[in-house]
Amino acid sequence: MAKKLLRVLSGEPLWPPPAWLMRQAGRYLPEYRELRARAGSFLGLCTNPDLAMEVTLQPIRRFGFDAAILFSDILLLPWALGQGLDYVEGRGPVLPPLATPADLARLDPARAAAKLGPVLETVHRVRGALEEETLIGFAGAPFTVACYMVEGGGSRTWEKVRAMAWSQPALFGALIDLLVDQTIAWLAAQIEAGAEAVMLFDSWAGILAPDLFRAHVIEPTARIVAALRARYPEVPIIGFPRKSGLLMLEYVSRTGVQGVGMDTSIDAALAARKIAPKVALQGNLDPQLLVEGGPRMAHAVARLLSEVRGHPFIFNLGHGVVPETPVENITALLAQVRAEEARAAG
Amino acid sequence: MAKKLLRVLSGEPLWPPPAWLMRQAGRYLPEYRELRARAGSFLGLCTNPDLAMEVTLQPIRRFGFDAAILFSDILLLPWALGQGLDYVEGRGPVLPPLATPADLARLDPARAAAKLGPVLETVHRVRGALEEETLIGFAGAPFTVACYMVEGGGSRTWEKVRAMAWSQPALFGALIDLLVDQTIAWLAAQIEAGAEAVMLFDSWAGILAPDLFRAHVIEPTARIVAALRARYPEVPIIGFPRKSGLLMLEYVSRTGVQGVGMDTSIDAALAARKIAPKVALQGNLDPQLLVEGGPRMAHAVARLLSEVRGHPFIFNLGHGVVPETPVENITALLAQVRAEEARAAG
Repeated sequence: MAKKLLRVLSGEPLWPPPAWLMRQAGRYLPEYRELRARAGSFLGLCTNPDLAMEVTLQPIRRFGFDAAILFSDILLLPWALGQGLDYVEGRGPVLPPLATPADLARLDPARAAAKLGPVLETVHRVRGALEEETLIGFAGAPFTVACYMVEGGGSRTWEKVRAMAWSQPALFGALIDLLVDQTIAWLAAQIEAGAEAVMLFDSWAGILAPDLFRAHVIEPTARIVAALRARYPEVPIIGFPRKSGLLMLEYVSRTGVQGVGMDTSIDAALAARKIAPKVALQGNLDPQLLVEGGPRMAHAVARLLSEVRGHPFIFNLGHGVVPETPVENITALLAQVRAEEARAAG
Repeated sequence: MAKKLLRVLSGEPLWPPPAWLMRQAGRYLPEYRELRARAGSFLGLCTNPDLAMEVTLQPIRRFGFDAAILFSDILLLPWALGQGLDYVEGRGPVLPPLATPADLARLDPARAAAKLGPVLETVHRVRGALEEETLIGFAGAPFTVACYMVEGGGSRTWEKVRAMAWSQPALFGALIDLLVDQTIAWLAAQIEAGAEAVMLFDSWAGILAPDLFRAHVIEPTARIVAALRARYPEVPIIGFPRKSGLLMLEYVSRTGVQGVGMDTSIDAALAARKIAPKVALQGNLDPQLLVEGGPRMAHAVARLLSEVRGHPFIFNLGHGVVPETPVENITALLAQVRAEEARAAG
C-alpha cells in the first residue's frame, strides 16, 4: 500500500491528512543547533552526507512527520554550475551577480553532477533509513533561482532581475532555459537516488507582472513537470508559486502539478473550491501561530482542517518554521491533526 | 463639469483614461534632487509648505498629469502621534518599536493636529495652484502603519507585527483602533484643506493570513470608508491593498472603496472581469518597464489599455516610479495614453 503522502498526491483525500512542515529541519531544534555548530559552513553541511542525513532525519525521529524533505538549499544548483556562493551571517546568500552573456556562458553544467554527488548520496542514505515516511526531493524553480543569480543574493525590490527580464529578454530567457534543463536533470538525479516526490520552490513568483509570470514561472514549470512525468510517471510534483495571488489558479491548471503549496495569505476555503479535486493542496498555517501555540493555534488548525476537508490535503505551514518556535507546539500541532476523525473521501 | 479623475471614480469609463503615477514626485526628477539637496531632512521637506508644494507640483508642470498627490509620507501620522521617526540613508525609516500597552498609551492624539498643520497648509496651497488636476490626499492604511510602528521600520519578514497580531490581539486591536480613528481625522483634515480624493496605501496587506487580513485590513478600511463617506459623500476613496492576491476581490466588495489600486502582479484583464464596474481600477504597469521605455513599454501599455477598456480606469503604475527612470519615458507614456481614441463607455 502506497505511503500516505503519495496517496494524497494521487488525488485521494485521506483523513486525517499527512503532515510535514517546511524547514522542519532547522534552527528551532536544539539537536540541529548542536550539529550546526560542529559542521563549519552551511554549504559544508549541505554537502556532507553524514551530517545532511542526520539533519534531515532529526525532525522525523522527534515528531514522526509523514515526510522527510532533503536538507539542502535551492542555491546548490547555481553553486554546482560554477557561480560562486557564500552564506554570510545576518545577510544570507551572496553570489557574484550574473549580468552578461559572458557570465551565463561561464556556467558549466558538465561540472554540476560531480559537485552535487554528495547530496545524491544523502538522498540515497535517507531513503534507506525511512520506512513509512515519504522522501521529498526539491529544487528552486528556475525563476526564483534566477532571482538570486541576477541580484547576487536576496533583495527587497528585485529590481535587477525584473529589469533583465524586460530589457534583456534573450539573455534572461537563455538563463531560464538553462535552469529548466538543469533543474530537470537535478530532480531526475534526486529521483534516481531515492526521492519519491519532488517540490519546486518558487518563492519570488509573486513579484512578477502577469506576462512575465506566464513566461518565467508557468511555462518553465510546465516544461519541468512534463519532462519528469514522462520519465517518472509515478513521482508527483508539488509546485509552490509563493504569493502568486490571483495567478495561482492559472499556474495550477497550466503546469500539470499534482500538488500546490499555499502560502500563508491564501484563503484555503477559496482554494479548495477553485482548485480541481485531483490536485492536492498543501499548507498553510501561519508559522507565527506555531510560535504562539495554545488555543489560538488550535483554533486556526481546526478552522484550516474544516476548510479543506474533502479535498486531497497535506498539512503544512504557509512558510518555513521560524527559529523561535517552541518544539512542544509542533508536538501539539501533530497530535491535533492526527486526532481528526478518519473518514472516507468527502 | 467634474474633473476627469473624479468622473472615473464616480464610475464613468472615460477614454482616454486619466493618468498619474505613484511616486511621481521623487528622485528620478532632476528638479526634485536639486530641491531635496537644499532641504535638509526628509521630514523637514514634508513639513515645509513652500518646499512640499513645489515638490508636489514639479511633475504636474513637467508632464501635465491628471492628478497631483500630496508630497508626504505614510509615517507622518505615527510621528505626529509622538512616536519618534528618523529616515536613515540606505536603511529607510527607523522608529522606536511599539511593543507594550505603555508604548501605545504614550501616543498622544492631542498633539497630532498641531504637528500636521504645515502639511495641511501644503494641501491648501497646492489645491489653490491646480486647475484641471485633481488633488489626491493620502494616508497609510492602519495595518501598514502598524507594521512600521511595531517593527520599528521596514522588514523582510514582518515577524514582530504578525506575532503581535496573533499573540497580543487586545494590544494590536487597540493600536489598529487608534489608527482607524486617527486616519479618519487625518484624511478628513486633508479633505477640509482641499483634497478632492483620498488614497489609502496598504503596502503590506499581502503578508497576512486571511483571518488577520479580514480583521486588520478589510474591517478597518471599511470603517474609514464609512466614516469619510458619511461626512464627505462627494470625496472618493481609492484603496490599495498591495499583494492581497485572491483576497483583493473580497476587499473591494466589503470595504466600499470607489477605486482600487492594482499592484504589478495583478492580471488587469481578470480584475476588469471580476470587479464590479462601479469600482474604478487603477494601475498597474511594472515600474521597471518605465525604466526600459521604447517598444517594450509601448507594447505593455497598449496591452493594459486594451484589457481594461470599458471599465472605469485610472492609468498608473503597479508600484512607485523608481529613481533610475528616464524622464523622457514618462513623456512618451503619457503621449501614448492620451493618443487612445476617445469613445463612449464600452
